[in-house]
Amino acid sequence: MERPGDDIQALIALMARLPGLGPRSARRIVLHLIRKRTGQMTELAGLLDSVATHSRECLVCGNITDRDECAICTDPSRATGEICVVEDVADLWALERGHVFKGRYHVLGGTLSALDEIGPDELGIPALIDRVHRDGAAEVILALNATVEGQTTAHYIAEALEGSEVTVTGLAQGVPIGGELDYLDDGTITAALRARRRL
Amino acid sequence: MERPGDDIQALIALMARLPGLGPRSARRIVLHLIRKRTGQMTELAGLLDSVATHSRECLVCGNITDRDECAICTDPSRATGEICVVEDVADLWALERGHVFKGRYHVLGGTLSALDEIGPDELGIPALIDRVHRDGAAEVILALNATVEGQTTAHYIAEALEGSEVTVTGLAQGVPIGGELDYLDDGTITAALRARRRL
Repeated sequence: MERPGDDIQALIALMARLPGLGPRSARRIVLHLIRKRTGQMTELAGLLDSVATHSRECLVCGNITDRDECAICTDPSRATGEICVVEDVADLWALERGHVFKGRYHVLGGTLSALDEIGPDELGIPALIDRVHRDGAAEVILALNATVEGQTTAHYIAEALEGSEVTVTGLAQGVPIGGELDYLDDGTITAALRARRRL
Repeated sequence: MERPGDDIQALIALMARLPGLGPRSARRIVLHLIRKRTGQMTELAGLLDSVATHSRECLVCGNITDRDECAICTDPSRATGEICVVEDVADLWALERGHVFKGRYHVLGGTLSALDEIGPDELGIPALIDRVHRDGAAEVILALNATVEGQTTAHYIAEALEGSEVTVTGLAQGVPIGGELDYLDDGTITAALRARRRL
């Protein structure tokens, strides 16, 4: 009795579970795709299938790739001795869009969390420490989110690397570009003030 | 040099062109899918492919279906003599979700528009008139959007059906359920007042 055919119904239900989408936006997208079923929809199905089949995690850094090691880990020009530690691949992509960092990455895949029973082993922190020593890295940049979990994790990694030759750094905290003081939280203003610099 | 592999990049670009999505939400969805690549992503690819291959327009009413005629047009219990004319399939789905209308539909696929050179023939209005007469329909409900284009189209169809036996009706206009007068536009308030009814 359901009006949109079974497959269409299932497709809408599946789409509605994607992050940021709901039943209404899923219906809109599915109808749009059905209108373009010979072009965009077929292309999307093919790409999804291809990415689902071929993508996996880089054995070295955890980035998404279609080979054993990702393009960054195999690019000799990026052997700068800097390893940038990020929570997940989205953060790696965000940093890459900045085109500033020229070293390599290490994707943790999360943050330490006692509640969720995620400890150093679950995040592969021992593997990171090994890698830092094996590569003879000069600097480890902890580009973790400025949340309690992110900073706890950063602190743990910094401690684990203490006593070794490597320099451990973190991202600067302060007023974001274009940010208006009036709209910033107190913590950010305090951090920006404490880390003020001579102009 | 691009970081997300070529296919992933293409997938994000394609997703970003879907209605309501942009580069940021597309990236978020693609990353989510890659994390669930053996489950949700493969399933989504399969469903998209299946719907793209099998869905087409009902030869009678224009609804989306996987057969020559849709489930509504072939359901004998829906031969009530009422034909509900809607702009597109999204409107048909919206009416079906209401579970109130028990007749059949006719999907125009748009509205009359001099600017876009969409005339009665492009919308299949002659076919609708033929169908109304052939089916011996008792009532044609013009469930078109309450926009200038929708109402122009409704007016055109009503005129084309003038002189025949069929009753032509339109949706009631007024205050939406849960609507607050303070937030309604003047046109709606005026329409609701003009069409006021005895309680």
